[in-house]
Amino acid sequence: MNIIEIINKKRLKQELTDEEIKYVVEGYLSEEIKDYQMSSLLMAILLNDMTNNEIYSLTKYMADSGDKLDLTVLGDNVVDKHSTGGVGDKTTLIITPIVASCGVKVAKMSGKGLGHTGGTIDKLESIPGFTVNMKEDVFLNQVNTINAAITSQTENIAIADKKIYALRDVTGTVESIPLIASSIMSKKIALGTKKLVLDVKVGKGALIKNIEDAKRLSSLMIDIGKHNNIEVVCVLTNMDIPLGNNIGNSLEVEEAISILRDGKEGSLTELCIELSSHMVSLGLNISYEEAKDKVIENLKNKSAYNKFLEIIKKQNGNIDLLPKEANQYDIKSMSEGYLVDMDAYKLGLLSMSLGAGRKNKEDTIDYSAGIVIHKNINDYINKEDILMTLYTNKEITSLDNTIFKISERKIPDNKLILDIMK
Amino acid sequence: MNIIEIINKKRLKQELTDEEIKYVVEGYLSEEIKDYQMSSLLMAILLNDMTNNEIYSLTKYMADSGDKLDLTVLGDNVVDKHSTGGVGDKTTLIITPIVASCGVKVAKMSGKGLGHTGGTIDKLESIPGFTVNMKEDVFLNQVNTINAAITSQTENIAIADKKIYALRDVTGTVESIPLIASSIMSKKIALGTKKLVLDVKVGKGALIKNIEDAKRLSSLMIDIGKHNNIEVVCVLTNMDIPLGNNIGNSLEVEEAISILRDGKEGSLTELCIELSSHMVSLGLNISYEEAKDKVIENLKNKSAYNKFLEIIKKQNGNIDLLPKEANQYDIKSMSEGYLVDMDAYKLGLLSMSLGAGRKNKEDTIDYSAGIVIHKNINDYINKEDILMTLYTNKEITSLDNTIFKISERKIPDNKLILDIMK
Repeated sequence: MNIIEIINKKRLKQELTDEEIKYVVEGYLSEEIKDYQMSSLLMAILLNDMTNNEIYSLTKYMADSGDKLDLTVLGDNVVDKHSTGGVGDKTTLIITPIVASCGVKVAKMSGKGLGHTGGTIDKLESIPGFTVNMKEDVFLNQVNTINAAITSQTENIAIADKKIYALRDVTGTVESIPLIASSIMSKKIALGTKKLVLDVKVGKGALIKNIEDAKRLSSLMIDIGKHNNIEVVCVLTNMDIPLGNNIGNSLEVEEAISILRDGKEGSLTELCIELSSHMVSLGLNISYEEAKDKVIENLKNKSAYNKFLEIIKKQNGNIDLLPKEANQYDIKSMSEGYLVDMDAYKLGLLSMSLGAGRKNKEDTIDYSAGIVIHKNINDYINKEDILMTLYTNKEITSLDNTIFKISERKIPDNKLILDIMK
Repeated sequence: MNIIEIINKKRLKQELTDEEIKYVVEGYLSEEIKDYQMSSLLMAILLNDMTNNEIYSLTKYMADSGDKLDLTVLGDNVVDKHSTGGVGDKTTLIITPIVASCGVKVAKMSGKGLGHTGGTIDKLESIPGFTVNMKEDVFLNQVNTINAAITSQTENIAIADKKIYALRDVTGTVESIPLIASSIMSKKIALGTKKLVLDVKVGKGALIKNIEDAKRLSSLMIDIGKHNNIEVVCVLTNMDIPLGNNIGNSLEVEEAISILRDGKEGSLTELCIELSSHMVSLGLNISYEEAKDKVIENLKNKSAYNKFLEIIKKQNGNIDLLPKEANQYDIKSMSEGYLVDMDAYKLGLLSMSLGAGRKNKEDTIDYSAGIVIHKNINDYINKEDILMTLYTNKEITSLDNTIFKISERKIPDNKLILDIMK
């Protein structure tokens, strides 16, 4: 087989065969296909799209390219959850104990953050002592005992996906819906997932900017799921503004605690209830409504919070020692009116620059750094009101003053849950 | 500037600015922009096209990327000719002496061949003693003295084009009309061309397969010409079947001689008269008809052939010593009927495999190798008639029997000259 002929086929919108896609994935891993050939093919895929059969093949060979996990020992009430990535997204920290407290098993493998979005593993590592590198048997054993464990994803899962993703990142080929779908699903297949709730983020702070693309992506992931015997529910959610009030690792753990322990309400809580309900419904084979009742009850009666403490304890963390050494800077409003927008993407970048995230893979993280936003959309802001507090050990040299938008009139309420697809 | 943002713009069909294209060309040469980023951009250009302004900028910065020639010392009756590449295309060998004999100066810089098409320099190098590496002053001096010189193109002309072309060759991004147009014209600008006749090949044996693409390419090259003060005439010609009867280096020199000395007729002669007439018309500022009369006269009265001998002598060649050491194999017809097709592309590949061309840049050439085709389209073929003779010093292990197509009925005559655009 010849990579140039394969590129030419895709360029001319002809369908690639299963064998050709196998050759592409394996040839790229073995370096027979060069980076510059792969990036040309990826751009042709981005612009000319892929058929479902092509996507199934790509997903399969990426899933097959590394180690595979077998979760069947855990039984069939295991449910996974994945988010397409957003700013201030600490839902995994909150949902895992809720769902586990309802009798559903969560064997969560998470990643580290890069760029403007944070990673669950970084948030957990901000808890002193917390173990994120569990051996497979210890991990599975903990899920069997207390229904939940969260560990960092092994390096050897879907290695072709990893190599292709790194190339997409530097060649302007990230925003391809079939490539996003096969990347996410290849990892889930390799991780042995059989039931999956996907939080598909849509908006300025997300990879997917509009609802049509989010629907296409969701329906593709559902199709890939069916093709691989995975039950998939997609929850399409708004990501124009950050999720919750806190951005940054230990700050996000604190916000998770305030929801689980103190019953803090708001759109983040609403989203966690929604996602948890779908997971519990899938895991226990009960209706969404029945599942939602359980979820709300376990939040109220603190079983979810107790499960959270149990997971932390089991993985050796101590939430009483969360780092708080960062300097605080209050940022005040210079004008008055209704808060009509806050830019999730810019807040993500700001949080990264304060030390909470990585610009490059090698960067180290300041777990205490980040942002607390004190206002919500449509709040009335007076001059000198504190909009946000920055937490950092770095010097702040300049600040983007286009993050918040204040206007004379309120805006219509933003819908948080845009659609459910299954 | 950021290459990923530039790729994203092109991906979204937004026009790149002059500064962005400058950054792309210079950044790629300086290796700030990587191969894998450039190939992604090239595929986005191939699929999303370029505006004329983008093409002008790309052409300009590629032309500026290497050495430049100044031909103004030669006066304003200098005309260049370029072919977009075909099989058996020895027109330069024939046209240069015709045009020079009419009082027009031809300062020809040619390239080596790669793949299924041959290069003029290889054909000339098959003539023992012939010098193809002339110093600039010797070259210009010869043009001034006898109206013509042919030398190999210096390595330092339009080096960005060279680097980009090499990448396109291995990334499936050759067949982009704006990229082909800017590649050809950037070299002509750097070479100081002011009047140019372009032989745009269309058909199975050419890069451009259909007339619509050929028209778009021609009109683009004419536009780039206007933008750079270059008068351009495009002659769109059929390249479904090879040009003339001989393919291979010394065999093509022999065919050139048979036209110039012996008055051999046919489509190759017709094409040479057409291209020469446009060149003479441009060079002497006379009508096409007047120019054509001169061309035909100088062919008949052998001034063109004498000019050919003069050029060979001046550049130290000896046509009496053309290499003929190859073994000959006659290929006979296995069926009877009219010859309705011969595949130029396959014949080009066959000739290369016999030793007449290079598969890779490093390959050496057997100047005596090649093919002589004994039949023309619509000739009646009897069983056992010799269709072609193969010349080679290699062993012939297998032969594609789909090169010639024989049918019960004649086909309508193929038009050789498809269009003239200026």
